[in-house]
Amino acid sequence: VTRIPRSHPRYRSLVLRSDLAEKMARGVVVPEGLMAHGRGEAFDYLLGERSYPEALQATRAAAARLLLAQRPVLSVNGNVAALAANEVAALAKALPSLKVEVNLFHRTPGRAEQVAEELRRAGLRTVLGVHPTARLRGLPSDRGWVEATGILLADVVLVPLEDGDRAEALVRAGKFVIAVDLNPLSRTARAAQLPLVDELVRVLRHLKTEVVRQRRFPRRALATLAASVDGPELRAAALRRISARLEALAREDVRERPSKAR
Amino acid sequence: VTRIPRSHPRYRSLVLRSDLAEKMARGVVVPEGLMAHGRGEAFDYLLGERSYPEALQATRAAAARLLLAQRPVLSVNGNVAALAANEVAALAKALPSLKVEVNLFHRTPGRAEQVAEELRRAGLRTVLGVHPTARLRGLPSDRGWVEATGILLADVVLVPLEDGDRAEALVRAGKFVIAVDLNPLSRTARAAQLPLVDELVRVLRHLKTEVVRQRRFPRRALATLAASVDGPELRAAALRRISARLEALAREDVRERPSKAR
Repeated sequence: VTRIPRSHPRYRSLVLRSDLAEKMARGVVVPEGLMAHGRGEAFDYLLGERSYPEALQATRAAAARLLLAQRPVLSVNGNVAALAANEVAALAKALPSLKVEVNLFHRTPGRAEQVAEELRRAGLRTVLGVHPTARLRGLPSDRGWVEATGILLADVVLVPLEDGDRAEALVRAGKFVIAVDLNPLSRTARAAQLPLVDELVRVLRHLKTEVVRQRRFPRRALATLAASVDGPELRAAALRRISARLEALAREDVRERPSKAR
Repeated sequence: VTRIPRSHPRYRSLVLRSDLAEKMARGVVVPEGLMAHGRGEAFDYLLGERSYPEALQATRAAAARLLLAQRPVLSVNGNVAALAANEVAALAKALPSLKVEVNLFHRTPGRAEQVAEELRRAGLRTVLGVHPTARLRGLPSDRGWVEATGILLADVVLVPLEDGDRAEALVRAGKFVIAVDLNPLSRTARAAQLPLVDELVRVLRHLKTEVVRQRRFPRRALATLAASVDGPELRAAALRRISARLEALAREDVRERPSKAR
């Protein structure tokens, strides 16, 4: 066991990483998922590590979409279960129409069950996707498996931390895709009709609050909210955010160490 | 075993990730190292995934520094050994004065030996740091261990993929630190007198070529080359690079999908 010194300036982040590493040992997360988490961390750092105004508005719109949906499904992979099982369970409790389906890029025997177990331990009653029987067109190998009563029939699919192939296949299948992806230029963020360029735990918590708040809104108000954002504009806003943050960090950097380097 | 579909647009990157995952199973890489690799990938993507002019000039200056050094040491952690053992061995062969020392953030019994073995398998004769006996001041716990005849005595230390604490401690100990770090704003890149904001394998290959090319240069020419770059300017160049790339990607994005998102 490695001790993380409390004096480390990124102590909290290191503890989270250590937690993910432990979940990999249990088979919930795969090594590729750890690398993906690292890429997300880099983008979150560049976005300022908090939900910015446009991202908050996008999440409000996503809540309205989910409330308007006939058959909404939340797709969960290993990283989602490892990072946010409690938040997934809380959202599903707040929105009884939402089905939760395990979907793995790296599907190995038993792993879907491990991921489902992680969700059940957090209090989720029903988890789809452990033994899926239907196929989503256009996805090679194991990645095309979906649940016949879940994603196959869904009208709105919330896909956090998903790969581009799957997001594109879902859109081609006629689904309205809400993605959660910290890289505003990823294929997932480009394919999704509603890309939430923000960190997963923050998004799910805010989504739950909004679902509860909007629950009694008339459908017309929900429709207005759902249409209040636009994919390309949301991605552009995230890029502006990153550019501004880079400039701010660069200014800070110069101020801190005026002539240090030689 | 997961099959990676050849049709995947990031096939090469996925193969590299799969290789890292395999090296984690052997104990060379730790889970935290996989996440760090993911963060690096994100920055390399933003930098354009190739060595840009300022980075190439920085590596030329680093080669001159290493040739001028009395006791240069290359510090190797698990990720460095996993990603670039061959390049480390080739550089050490081209520069016989260079000592190679294993230095681990996550030091567990046997792991230093695993990392050393990875380097020896690539053809490196002498590897320091498996049983270090000296301490570097200002580093808590296991992370302060160094080799008395290696980093403790070094005048120039090349530290790829290092954490900020260690880079700062090395600078405080009077070393000239050449860092390799894809995040231009990291504490490592800020602490190092010479930050190489570029991908490790590209840097080490170029460094070897430059060491061979500059080997017969007079010391005065080497000194001029070594002084031809400046830390803050190199970091600013990397930030400009990222900003320009984000703008280009955003433009491409708009061109590709003029009105797709609704």
